[in-house]
Amino acid sequence: MTSHREAMPNAFVPGKGDLGPEELALVARRQKALGPAYRLFYETPLHLVRGEGVWLYDAAGNAYLDAYNNVASLGHCHPRVVAAMAKQAATFASHTRYLHDTILSYSERLLATFPDRLSHVMFTCTGSEANDLALRIAYQHTGGTGIIVTENAYHGVTHLVAGFSPSLGAGVARGAHVRTVPAPDPVRGDDTGPEFARAVQGAIDDLARSGIRPAALIVDTIFSSDGVIPDPAGFLAPAVAAIRAAGGLFIADEVQPGFGRTGAGMWGFARHGVIPDMVSLGKPMGNGYPVAGLVLRPGVVAEFGARGRYFNTFGGNAVAAATAMAVLDVIEEEGLIGNARDVGDYLATGLAALARRHDCLGAPRGAGLFIGADIVTDGRPDAALAARIVNGLREARVLISATARAGNVLKIRPPLTFSRENADLLLERLDQVVTAL
Amino acid sequence: MTSHREAMPNAFVPGKGDLGPEELALVARRQKALGPAYRLFYETPLHLVRGEGVWLYDAAGNAYLDAYNNVASLGHCHPRVVAAMAKQAATFASHTRYLHDTILSYSERLLATFPDRLSHVMFTCTGSEANDLALRIAYQHTGGTGIIVTENAYHGVTHLVAGFSPSLGAGVARGAHVRTVPAPDPVRGDDTGPEFARAVQGAIDDLARSGIRPAALIVDTIFSSDGVIPDPAGFLAPAVAAIRAAGGLFIADEVQPGFGRTGAGMWGFARHGVIPDMVSLGKPMGNGYPVAGLVLRPGVVAEFGARGRYFNTFGGNAVAAATAMAVLDVIEEEGLIGNARDVGDYLATGLAALARRHDCLGAPRGAGLFIGADIVTDGRPDAALAARIVNGLREARVLISATARAGNVLKIRPPLTFSRENADLLLERLDQVVTAL
Repeated sequence: MTSHREAMPNAFVPGKGDLGPEELALVARRQKALGPAYRLFYETPLHLVRGEGVWLYDAAGNAYLDAYNNVASLGHCHPRVVAAMAKQAATFASHTRYLHDTILSYSERLLATFPDRLSHVMFTCTGSEANDLALRIAYQHTGGTGIIVTENAYHGVTHLVAGFSPSLGAGVARGAHVRTVPAPDPVRGDDTGPEFARAVQGAIDDLARSGIRPAALIVDTIFSSDGVIPDPAGFLAPAVAAIRAAGGLFIADEVQPGFGRTGAGMWGFARHGVIPDMVSLGKPMGNGYPVAGLVLRPGVVAEFGARGRYFNTFGGNAVAAATAMAVLDVIEEEGLIGNARDVGDYLATGLAALARRHDCLGAPRGAGLFIGADIVTDGRPDAALAARIVNGLREARVLISATARAGNVLKIRPPLTFSRENADLLLERLDQVVTAL
Repeated sequence: MTSHREAMPNAFVPGKGDLGPEELALVARRQKALGPAYRLFYETPLHLVRGEGVWLYDAAGNAYLDAYNNVASLGHCHPRVVAAMAKQAATFASHTRYLHDTILSYSERLLATFPDRLSHVMFTCTGSEANDLALRIAYQHTGGTGIIVTENAYHGVTHLVAGFSPSLGAGVARGAHVRTVPAPDPVRGDDTGPEFARAVQGAIDDLARSGIRPAALIVDTIFSSDGVIPDPAGFLAPAVAAIRAAGGLFIADEVQPGFGRTGAGMWGFARHGVIPDMVSLGKPMGNGYPVAGLVLRPGVVAEFGARGRYFNTFGGNAVAAATAMAVLDVIEEEGLIGNARDVGDYLATGLAALARRHDCLGAPRGAGLFIGADIVTDGRPDAALAARIVNGLREARVLISATARAGNVLKIRPPLTFSRENADLLLERLDQVVTAL
């Protein structure tokens, strides 16, 4: 049981940590009310009460620099988004079975950020639902059932999607028609693309030996749970060609890299010069409001739409649309993609400088404000050391986490409003924490 | 393709209906942006712009009495709920991996409305996710994979859940381990319980012949999509005993009857004198905010929690909790369960009087403010006539819909704030529409 629990990087282990009486009482209430499947972050969990911009505040009034939470991608409690949500919720909140303009205006504006051939959008409430819907559509369109993902992929928590999210740990059964491929090796350089395509082709061949036709290759285009693997840009193209040649679809999971985080346009797939058949969206889409969706080319959904219908009671309701519209407004008007690029580069440069001074800290990998950095001891992945750094930073009031199959990659993913000054503070505290190890 | 589309009662058929130019343009934009899987209500879809209490307003300013939408169960845009949502969204909106009081206060208050043994709650964003999670947990706990549902059940739209939601139509593949049973016959009276239990036992036996162990019997405790079958209260008990004797769990889907709608306490299962192993919650839980959940007894989730974890990014976030708490406040302080009972009885009495005067209108069946009434011609189900009545009422500015496998049951499910005066208006308009047939 312990090993399953420890499959999650940066999980609190009950009975450990330096909790005060108030926090111990909250932990006990959680266990009683929420049961055994919930996890907290950090050796000593945070008790938060307020958020504003890049800052989160605990019950004692301490401020924490948030360099982890990508849902509040515009900063916590962005006043413009909150106002748009409240206004629409006070006016009309109902669903997509009545005509309403806002959902259409939002859809058209969102679709304008995609290549022309991706011209439909369907709405869900969560990224899990978006990926689940993507596979339902892929099954119908291809007649295949095989699914190819990376070895430590995470795509969500419905029964179907958990079955192709191996990062949930060995305790969660893998779907019978799921095949995994190693994530691209970040140090292969020019051979990354061909190597990844060879792995995908191997999975296609393995499915074929079991008499299974492929439905889809689905990847998070920044490979977050595999350890953040952005480069070389373009490496996805040969694998996409391989899955299509085998009759399967390519689904880009943009729940984590999407909405400008990479600093190179709105969508992570664009860095790779590919156009997916479907694109799933989630977390930052409503800056905290539960809205997600699936963008797709019309050809793949024709059969699905003819044979059945899709209705998600809350998906694409008027409040979701108005809130998500405000998010697009803010990304554009505050120039957040440019800021992600600028501050992301600045932060990566600072991390590279730290890496030269600290043997345990690998060179940063990233795109915009999504950065990973290996923690190693004698050249080998060191998850325990990564956990010490993550928890050391939490004590120093900077929030990051860890990722990758080995749990040894620092995961730095701040709100897109992060400033150079915020980056300096992160770098200063990280330097202190690593120096004190 | 037409037959699949017509599997949904009260669906708009493109190219038909009496739409103005503005509405035609909206329909065209929908088809272009949202694609072929979306459906509108009514022969002539409604273009809505505002909601307040039991009233919805179209773009021309016409008011429609809402006797259908159960998401806005406290009335559309309830100011107290909107204020609670906006206040929390401006303060802190983050997830369940930090300690936060509101989610626990809400959980404890919600759980206090359940029998003691149902003492855990897990949070999702949609009823689909809640039912999907229920089955994941049931699989893990029972080791079985068989699922038993009614012939026209609806439980949601994830891949797994759509597979046991036959009301989605023959175009949606049924899961391999799913068995259906006829919904209870509303006119059998005292034999309803034993008859339904015999059908469930037959499904258990049929699964056994295929070597499949049952995981769960799941029913909507008001049998909404099967035509609204509330009586005789208590009829579920023998079927629940049968599934348990076979090693399966009983899951009550309270997405539609829950949160006081039946006028007989908070939960539909209580009318049947049974205590489920799990209870799924959804639609009215946040009066429009996307929040849903699963209440369960600790024993069933122990194995699931030990082997894996559950995290739903938006599920149970601080805004969801604060909003859902305001919903409980309003239900209690406005006495909405009592109102559902009182106005529901009043409305049912009025419908019974109309049924005595109109041959096509069957005697109403219902509990509180969830009422179904058969439409028949020469004693046989008449879906076309039901559609004429539903659309006639829409022209008369009263919103209801139709349900049941045969599509011939009027579905009346207004906000719980419905008044006797509202009921009188519905009855008057229904009388006019049926008289004019």
